[in-house]
Amino acid sequence: MSDNGPVVGYQTIQRKRDGLELDAEELEAFFRAYGAARVPDYQMAAFLMAVFFRGLSPAELAALVELNLRSGAVVDLSQVPGRKVDKHSTGGVGDKVSIALAPLVSCLGVAVPMISGRGLGHTGGTLDKLETIPGFRTDLSLDEFRSQVSQIGCALVGQTGEIAPLDRKLYALRDVTATVESIPLIASSIMGKKLAEGIDGLLLDIKRGPGAFLPELDRALLLARTMIALGARYGCEVVAMVTAMDRPLGFAVGNALEVEESILLLRGEGPPDLRELTLAQAGEMLRLGAVAATAQEGRRLAARALADGRALDQLRRIVEAQGGNPAVVDDPAILPQAPVRRVVEAERDGWVAEVAARAIGEAAVALGAGRATLDAVIDPAVGFHITAKPGEPVTRGQALATVDARTPAQAEVGAAALRAAIRIGDEKPAPPLPLISHYVSGGGIREVRVEGSGVRPG
Amino acid sequence: MSDNGPVVGYQTIQRKRDGLELDAEELEAFFRAYGAARVPDYQMAAFLMAVFFRGLSPAELAALVELNLRSGAVVDLSQVPGRKVDKHSTGGVGDKVSIALAPLVSCLGVAVPMISGRGLGHTGGTLDKLETIPGFRTDLSLDEFRSQVSQIGCALVGQTGEIAPLDRKLYALRDVTATVESIPLIASSIMGKKLAEGIDGLLLDIKRGPGAFLPELDRALLLARTMIALGARYGCEVVAMVTAMDRPLGFAVGNALEVEESILLLRGEGPPDLRELTLAQAGEMLRLGAVAATAQEGRRLAARALADGRALDQLRRIVEAQGGNPAVVDDPAILPQAPVRRVVEAERDGWVAEVAARAIGEAAVALGAGRATLDAVIDPAVGFHITAKPGEPVTRGQALATVDARTPAQAEVGAAALRAAIRIGDEKPAPPLPLISHYVSGGGIREVRVEGSGVRPG
Repeated sequence: MSDNGPVVGYQTIQRKRDGLELDAEELEAFFRAYGAARVPDYQMAAFLMAVFFRGLSPAELAALVELNLRSGAVVDLSQVPGRKVDKHSTGGVGDKVSIALAPLVSCLGVAVPMISGRGLGHTGGTLDKLETIPGFRTDLSLDEFRSQVSQIGCALVGQTGEIAPLDRKLYALRDVTATVESIPLIASSIMGKKLAEGIDGLLLDIKRGPGAFLPELDRALLLARTMIALGARYGCEVVAMVTAMDRPLGFAVGNALEVEESILLLRGEGPPDLRELTLAQAGEMLRLGAVAATAQEGRRLAARALADGRALDQLRRIVEAQGGNPAVVDDPAILPQAPVRRVVEAERDGWVAEVAARAIGEAAVALGAGRATLDAVIDPAVGFHITAKPGEPVTRGQALATVDARTPAQAEVGAAALRAAIRIGDEKPAPPLPLISHYVSGGGIREVRVEGSGVRPG
Repeated sequence: MSDNGPVVGYQTIQRKRDGLELDAEELEAFFRAYGAARVPDYQMAAFLMAVFFRGLSPAELAALVELNLRSGAVVDLSQVPGRKVDKHSTGGVGDKVSIALAPLVSCLGVAVPMISGRGLGHTGGTLDKLETIPGFRTDLSLDEFRSQVSQIGCALVGQTGEIAPLDRKLYALRDVTATVESIPLIASSIMGKKLAEGIDGLLLDIKRGPGAFLPELDRALLLARTMIALGARYGCEVVAMVTAMDRPLGFAVGNALEVEESILLLRGEGPPDLRELTLAQAGEMLRLGAVAATAQEGRRLAARALADGRALDQLRRIVEAQGGNPAVVDDPAILPQAPVRRVVEAERDGWVAEVAARAIGEAAVALGAGRATLDAVIDPAVGFHITAKPGEPVTRGQALATVDARTPAQAEVGAAALRAAIRIGDEKPAPPLPLISHYVSGGGIREVRVEGSGVRPG
């Protein structure tokens, strides 16, 4: 009866609300009208909440991916030889894998055109971490991005306005309307952006456990299967691993601290769990990139590139290409340093029963390392270095962690938060989640038990 | 971590989304922030859709009613003697009951402080109808409203900005986000407004059937029970009747046409179904108003006041008090008249199988009698007069209805819509819904079968 936004939008919201399937034409009309601001944010918010409850059919999901993808530019990497592979993590506390993984994989001949995000809520973001390197630019144009991937095989940038602008707009809205945690919306958002990178393969790291965005295993696996099916429609091979986020990954939580830990890893040092997960992911990506026949072979190639410094050299090249100070890879003290450091000691003998990832992530935000709102400014230097891992025995007075803070008062608050988050019990606790518990591919789900939980032998 | 709107709003949306119960304090903070525009429309839209799926607990519902009520003025009618009673209909096609009911009940000594709405979508609104009376003002101030109820026992007005402004804002948003059809949201909206009128009793007319806002009986009954329980918290006795909206009520559909039909009813004429429902509702309201001991006694009193002209005189007083031309009650031709009238005849012999209320309501909107969007301007004169009722035998060429239109072309479109909506079959059809099928009160649900479907004997 009228073709103005509210009326057009109304029927689409109502049909989704009532569980009817929307055809591609209706979805396109609705989302295009949203892009053109004829469907207002409040209508899209209601629609997204209806999707949260009703889900999307496979056809609806494919249509939404297509709309996200086609809303912006698609990077043409056809002149870059070989397969292009990227990795996406659903995000976790201390998850700095990408910083070492991208140079590690790309130094072995698989191009990694990586577009990353910022931290929000209790999890950090790769962009915020990289930007602690003096001079490092993450805002390359698409031309600069393509050219750098051509020349050195890797670029690490943020999502520009040219890539999937519809998804950017949707994500900003989901983020303030509690509609982020919807499997089809997550899948369509990730795939829309990743396919725009022009990749042939994608490794998905799906965190689970209390510190993860999707704590439950069944939802992690559903996301994996949804992404794999979507990738197949576009000729993009997707494999997923389900990894632990009941405790932080590695020791460092905080932007510059995590870059420092990544550099240590590329020097052959770094926490064992971080090393294990990075090598496992590199193995998969090298297999996806057809440089290795199997992930095991890829892992061996990656271990060698870590050991002989090729991966570190590649990080140096990337930092230099993106305007950063390449000396950082030899002297991480160039990174911003917090003025106050405070050690947190065990208050009793016992066993580390829990290192609560979510509480630690939230404490890091409170310290200034993350943002509660999109426009918040982060403090690059502050954070935690938590060497205590679940399952370890501790004795009273033993150092469990350090807090790097801007002021002594903040350090005290951070230390109190860590004391609450690192729970010490009387008995050896049940084992934490396996570092890697499942591999998911087009062939199905394979359960594994890769430990590498950072519990040092002895 | 921050007290700005998006973050405060986020947690409340998320908790409702996840099925947790919100306490009164949290709801108050959220809705007050919305009233102050610190929670934006898009967050409220997501919240309302989450309520659509999750519902509201009795305590949440009571808190929302309280917020709607306290967001504006409450009319103090304490100086008006006796009980004050109102009626609310969930809305239907041809439902002009209020226009005759308010004078009928108030002329018998029960004050009726009635705040009505405008039509939207396929159902009409009492305000639009009343405003077809030349000069009639529905925009009385609260002082004028109170004073008129004191003096003549009745006023018929629109919701002012002073009454339940939160509900106005919420309703406008629900209306464009497909979150109208939620029982707790409907109940909190009606009760917030009605309690602000200062009433002691409320009769609820819940339409069901394909032309109703809540087509299913179980949802109609749930709304009834929800409203009754809410009223009990405030010392307002609520009774509900479930009535038929598979076909239009009465013959007239269209604003001035419905006023004319209401005047005919007050003269002792008018369609039998409209008369039956009006008398039944009057009986209940007179019982609620303690003027009659039972609804049956109330009905008898009302029938007498219809027969002896007291109700018609009361309408004359109301029209005059609100600035309208009181001569309209003696000469309805004073009402706006459409220039084109077209008769719709039966194209074959048979039985009237269906007079599809929703299709007729939508055809009336297309003709200009209703609005598809809130800012649309309506044509007061146009509409339908449909004498055909389901279950009647018809012969080819018999007049079924007339169309009053602005132009011959519009009349033709309207006639075609009526021919499609009035379905004629070969056999006597199954009986339509009973005019009144259920009474619901604090004592429970009573099933009845009041026919009065307008099928004339013979």
